[in-house]
Amino acid sequence: MLINCAAYQEGHKLSDIPKEDISEYLKRPGCFVWVALKDPSSAELDEMREEFSLHELAVDDARSGHQRPKIEEYGDSLFAVLKAVEPHEDELRLGEVDIFVGSNYILSVRKQSEKGFADVRSRSENEPHLLQYGAAYVFYALIDKVVDRYFPVLDGLETELEAIEEQIFVKNQARSNIEALYELKSKLMVLKHAVDPLMEAVGKLYGGRVPQICAGMGEYFRDVYDHLQRLHATIEGIREMLATAIQVNLGMISLNETEVTKKLAAWAAIIAVPTMIAGVYGMNFKHMPELEWEWGYPLAMLAMIGIDVWLYSWFKRIRWL
Amino acid sequence: MLINCAAYQEGHKLSDIPKEDISEYLKRPGCFVWVALKDPSSAELDEMREEFSLHELAVDDARSGHQRPKIEEYGDSLFAVLKAVEPHEDELRLGEVDIFVGSNYILSVRKQSEKGFADVRSRSENEPHLLQYGAAYVFYALIDKVVDRYFPVLDGLETELEAIEEQIFVKNQARSNIEALYELKSKLMVLKHAVDPLMEAVGKLYGGRVPQICAGMGEYFRDVYDHLQRLHATIEGIREMLATAIQVNLGMISLNETEVTKKLAAWAAIIAVPTMIAGVYGMNFKHMPELEWEWGYPLAMLAMIGIDVWLYSWFKRIRWL
Amino acid sequence: MLINCAAYQEGHKLSDIPKEDISEYLKRPGCFVWVALKDPSSAELDEMREEFSLHELAVDDARSGHQRPKIEEYGDSLFAVLKAVEPHEDELRLGEVDIFVGSNYILSVRKQSEKGFADVRSRSENEPHLLQYGAAYVFYALIDKVVDRYFPVLDGLETELEAIEEQIFVKNQARSNIEALYELKSKLMVLKHAVDPLMEAVGKLYGGRVPQICAGMGEYFRDVYDHLQRLHATIEGIREMLATAIQVNLGMISLNETEVTKKLAAWAAIIAVPTMIAGVYGMNFKHMPELEWEWGYPLAMLAMIGIDVWLYSWFKRIRWL
Amino acid sequence: MLINCAAYQEGHKLSDIPKEDISEYLKRPGCFVWVALKDPSSAELDEMREEFSLHELAVDDARSGHQRPKIEEYGDSLFAVLKAVEPHEDELRLGEVDIFVGSNYILSVRKQSEKGFADVRSRSENEPHLLQYGAAYVFYALIDKVVDRYFPVLDGLETELEAIEEQIFVKNQARSNIEALYELKSKLMVLKHAVDPLMEAVGKLYGGRVPQICAGMGEYFRDVYDHLQRLHATIEGIREMLATAIQVNLGMISLNETEVTKKLAAWAAIIAVPTMIAGVYGMNFKHMPELEWEWGYPLAMLAMIGIDVWLYSWFKRIRWL
Amino acid sequence: MLINCAAYQEGHKLSDIPKEDISEYLKRPGCFVWVALKDPSSAELDEMREEFSLHELAVDDARSGHQRPKIEEYGDSLFAVLKAVEPHEDELRLGEVDIFVGSNYILSVRKQSEKGFADVRSRSENEPHLLQYGAAYVFYALIDKVVDRYFPVLDGLETELEAIEEQIFVKNQARSNIEALYELKSKLMVLKHAVDPLMEAVGKLYGGRVPQICAGMGEYFRDVYDHLQRLHATIEGIREMLATAIQVNLGMISLNETEVTKKLAAWAAIIAVPTMIAGVYGMNFKHMPELEWEWGYPLAMLAMIGIDVWLYSWFKRIRWL
Repeated sequence: MLINCAAYQEGHKLSDIPKEDISEYLKRPGCFVWVALKDPSSAELDEMREEFSLHELAVDDARSGHQRPKIEEYGDSLFAVLKAVEPHEDELRLGEVDIFVGSNYILSVRKQSEKGFADVRSRSENEPHLLQYGAAYVFYALIDKVVDRYFPVLDGLETELEAIEEQIFVKNQARSNIEALYELKSKLMVLKHAVDPLMEAVGKLYGGRVPQICAGMGEYFRDVYDHLQRLHATIEGIREMLATAIQVNLGMISLNETEVTKKLAAWAAIIAVPTMIAGVYGMNFKHMPELEWEWGYPLAMLAMIGIDVWLYSWFKRIRWL
Repeated sequence: MLINCAAYQEGHKLSDIPKEDISEYLKRPGCFVWVALKDPSSAELDEMREEFSLHELAVDDARSGHQRPKIEEYGDSLFAVLKAVEPHEDELRLGEVDIFVGSNYILSVRKQSEKGFADVRSRSENEPHLLQYGAAYVFYALIDKVVDRYFPVLDGLETELEAIEEQIFVKNQARSNIEALYELKSKLMVLKHAVDPLMEAVGKLYGGRVPQICAGMGEYFRDVYDHLQRLHATIEGIREMLATAIQVNLGMISLNETEVTKKLAAWAAIIAVPTMIAGVYGMNFKHMPELEWEWGYPLAMLAMIGIDVWLYSWFKRIRWL
Repeated sequence: MLINCAAYQEGHKLSDIPKEDISEYLKRPGCFVWVALKDPSSAELDEMREEFSLHELAVDDARSGHQRPKIEEYGDSLFAVLKAVEPHEDELRLGEVDIFVGSNYILSVRKQSEKGFADVRSRSENEPHLLQYGAAYVFYALIDKVVDRYFPVLDGLETELEAIEEQIFVKNQARSNIEALYELKSKLMVLKHAVDPLMEAVGKLYGGRVPQICAGMGEYFRDVYDHLQRLHATIEGIREMLATAIQVNLGMISLNETEVTKKLAAWAAIIAVPTMIAGVYGMNFKHMPELEWEWGYPLAMLAMIGIDVWLYSWFKRIRWL
Repeated sequence: MLINCAAYQEGHKLSDIPKEDISEYLKRPGCFVWVALKDPSSAELDEMREEFSLHELAVDDARSGHQRPKIEEYGDSLFAVLKAVEPHEDELRLGEVDIFVGSNYILSVRKQSEKGFADVRSRSENEPHLLQYGAAYVFYALIDKVVDRYFPVLDGLETELEAIEEQIFVKNQARSNIEALYELKSKLMVLKHAVDPLMEAVGKLYGGRVPQICAGMGEYFRDVYDHLQRLHATIEGIREMLATAIQVNLGMISLNETEVTKKLAAWAAIIAVPTMIAGVYGMNFKHMPELEWEWGYPLAMLAMIGIDVWLYSWFKRIRWL
Repeated sequence: MLINCAAYQEGHKLSDIPKEDISEYLKRPGCFVWVALKDPSSAELDEMREEFSLHELAVDDARSGHQRPKIEEYGDSLFAVLKAVEPHEDELRLGEVDIFVGSNYILSVRKQSEKGFADVRSRSENEPHLLQYGAAYVFYALIDKVVDRYFPVLDGLETELEAIEEQIFVKNQARSNIEALYELKSKLMVLKHAVDPLMEAVGKLYGGRVPQICAGMGEYFRDVYDHLQRLHATIEGIREMLATAIQVNLGMISLNETEVTKKLAAWAAIIAVPTMIAGVYGMNFKHMPELEWEWGYPLAMLAMIGIDVWLYSWFKRIRWL
């Protein structure tokens, strides 16, 4: 589905153009074309391939999807694959944003992703001094947008970790904690696989040898790289705390087991001792003087209760109860 | 066993040729020979060594098999070892594909592998514009095919992991889960040992200094490399989730132990308390007024049942039962 | 909030200057301006951006905060982000120190951090032979100060670890130990995220290609780098010991469980044996000669007590009690 | 002990020579001397040092032994340390092979190693076309031999791992499994310490800058390197499976514990319920109508047995028994 | 405290000299001064700084101590920090050796270290052919000495590990094993922090670009580097075995728990069954024919004993007892 198709010159929008005219505008000097597709059909991609003379392999990747994030050079054009990570109910939904960029065109292909880039377009159109950098600036703005959207997702995961941390030393929460930890780990891996390869790829867009198209934008791409590094470091931090939390949780489960065993032992003693005494006075020996005593029964009961009170307070003292 | 032996010129098949004529066709300019062997005898390999003047060490490797994936340069020819990974019943079967490639020949040797490359051959013959790149293109197409066949295998492992994840928090599944996790780990390692060294090797076929033979095919080999990186990243992801799942499974086992102990403790209490009371009224003291009461027995029974009902509901409340 | 704003020449302070005059002093040869802000408003930052013509992206980073430590070049000026780590009650509080430095100015922005840099300023003013290195020296002095403040924090964590190590083999401390270990790990991660990226960044300020502004100060920045490496090595050491301590703690919990089970078993035996004997003599067989004996009862009691004494001493000997 | 000392020229053996004549033969052009020592005395080493003018530090290393594998350049000669790993009863015995090689001599020193290199010598003498490469070829042949001998050792360890894997999910094997896993780990570490440093060292004998002496032998040393990489990869694979197996074993131990506890609980219930019922009818209340019934006793017994049969089948059903 | 102060020329000692004369001797061509300090006061260090014109930052490091091992260049002189590791009772004591070396002087500062370098001095003086390399040779000899002293310490740790390994599968040793493992880990970390940074530092003293002062000594420093690598590899090996041993120990603890539970269960059954039978014959039913039998009591006793004998032998057979 074609979302948008417009031509720009010297930082200003010329007009929306029909997609058939794209190749014409590409010939005009100082002019660039910006096209946005959403979940395009195979035919639409073929059309674009012809208009922009894109490389076969790049279009194949865009068509089949499920690529890992990357930025590839094809001659003097670039092909970028980014992952859109959007929280959806209790899961992270993974969309894809493919960007084809050349000296005078930019084509973004959004797949299985709710959030579009209308705001990138309108903000760019309001900043002609930046937009006149051309397609490279739009390329930067799109990547920056996708990366910026990772932050709230990661904040959500950090909040989840904190919620678990508050529960981790609470008794009888071990089961729900362990499930939450595993689920959090799964989500973290999704984000990690979106961030890490992209960081590596963006790192090649500034500094030493950069693709011709990105020349002069170094500080902008370094800024994106810096954001990705921040995401990466936070992800690694959460990952390490998660590993520790899982171990600690295991410890809490074992501690809990010990406490249950202690309780079992304490109550077993409290019940078993009177049972033993009762057993003794239930013996059928002819000569058992206590049985004849008038106060035998109350005394026996007193002994039982007394011992149990003492046992109970003792177990309380050593914290078995 | 000789599967196929044909000569090609300018992207088109000349004809199937007898293997004795190979060296003749090799002398024709612009012509290349494509030979496919399957589980060849030592003698067949020697024959090929002579026809193509292959390097002794490379032929030795192909003969003995069980090499790790690699791509080696011998002068201006290449020798590649790839692993064919094929699911077979509950296991992964490991075959080997060895490829010898020079400027005007390609020789593939398939061992212990069911799936052949007939489709690579027929597709190549239908695309003369690609086939005219010569042996290097066939080399690419074969590697690409082997690598593409890893994806369904890996998808199968991912599906297995998901199946385990669904079972991991279910009670009484710990034993089968742990077995499934270990088996999955074994299979993953098989795939990992097929993918990782190959990724490293293919990474040297594009970019900076590449073997003469692969010059001009950079974008194709980068595409294969990209697929291998995707496989690698997914394998690492599964591997990390597996490690976490094994730990979580251990936690579940411990949790289960605690629950069994709690049940044991609860039922022990429910049985022990009436036993104690019965013991008390089984004592043989002369003076035990309750024994004389008409309602003594029913009252004692009521007390026992009452206490047990209370215990039962209390254990239910604290979730020990 | 403006803390300080002064101009310096040839190692000596000229005077405090109003912030409106900054751009004037910047024009004087051999003169540099040193400004310190604390939790500045957005407006104050804009003012500074104009006076010093700072780069938009750098000012944006300083405004939004929560950056990871880094040192970035913008043309011939540098922008550094450092983390101030200050212990506060039982936690580590994380502030930020942003430094903009050019050939003739230095601007420090302190956020959410209690401790200022008045001592750096006064010490610098007392050492004209160093201060005449200009802004680069002040830049070094500020970084050095921030880094030096990490040492007491890290010493505190080492002391915490030692305190835990003393408790780790003490019985019944497992729960508090595990909590302490997790908390320590959290704090360690905070410090690690302050130290590691900074180490990487400072490493680029000496040796091969360094920013123009730091030329000639190599030995000073290497000294800072060396301190950061020492912090890093100590953090890694604590981290590894922590991981081991968590595992050892888990072992202690399991050991404790075993000991509780042994105690339970021993006492169960001591109670169950007399109960069994009493049960035997509570049987109602007509012909039980022992029941008739005059010494039957005392003998039975003696047997019970004797067996229990023997059991008790035996359990003591095998250390179950 | 001198095993062998011979001079070679143009790929053919001239004759065995007395060690005093070594220095003479070294002067002949196109001639090289091959000496083999076994567990030499310090004096023998000194003698060799003089004949071949070896470097002091290298001879010191050969004398003291217990070096890690390495290949060092001393001027235009090489000094190599390799580990001979030989299975002996249930252990791996570690010998050492030191090789001094120059342009016209090769000296091998074998220590605490059973297996000699007579087959290397005889095979070399039968392949004059290879032997005429001179000392470098013998150097390659010796290293290749030592490395080839690692394979059966590693195969043995793989077989051990498979044997453990077959036992790992079998009940009541946990103790022997854990011992076997630890022992296997120890052996694996021995092999790893023999292989890894050598791989690193051999990697420097082909490709870019190589020692003068190895020039032209690149493909042979790459072949050795490739074998070492294969060993390395297999060792890492076993190591990772071992780590997983140890964790899985821990899980099996815990599972077993749970099963024992379940059995304990089930039998406790089966014994405790009749005991409780018997207790009730052992009470001494005057008015207990059941006691008077003619069928009271058989009915009570029936109740006990009936409940137990039901309990038993129920525990069977929930797999506690 | 000044230990020694002497001047050397052409490999021979000129004489002990008073420290005030140092700067004079430094001016003599071909002469170098060797000074050894032990736990020097701040004043002594200042004195040396002046005599040798040492760099402020280096002297600061030597003064404050607690540096990590490193070798730093200050102009054409070097400053090295090494750790002296000395076993003391059950701990490892950490001293420091700081070395300042220039083309014509060497100054060693020993702190909190028992063992001096008198043997290095006397051996050097006996080897004029080596000593005439000048200060660089002494520098090598001191580092070599410090490194050589790590070997017996590491051997001690290996012996400790072996002692633990012998105990690890012995029952009831888990607690002492776990304590020993943790203590060994602590010591290992101390040694690791002494070895690893030094290895890195020494690695820069040979090969490519080396400090002017070490030129021509490459083979000696490579020898030290090789020793450090050997130490490093052994430390890593112990570290990995330690990690495995801790896990195995955890398994042994759990196994032990299972065995205790089995014992508990077996004895519980042996006691509970007779108790149940006794309970049955303790019931007060009017009509219990067995009670009337003359052989009722002995038969009941026989049944009890018989069942117990059978249970006992059965539990023995399944190894619960």
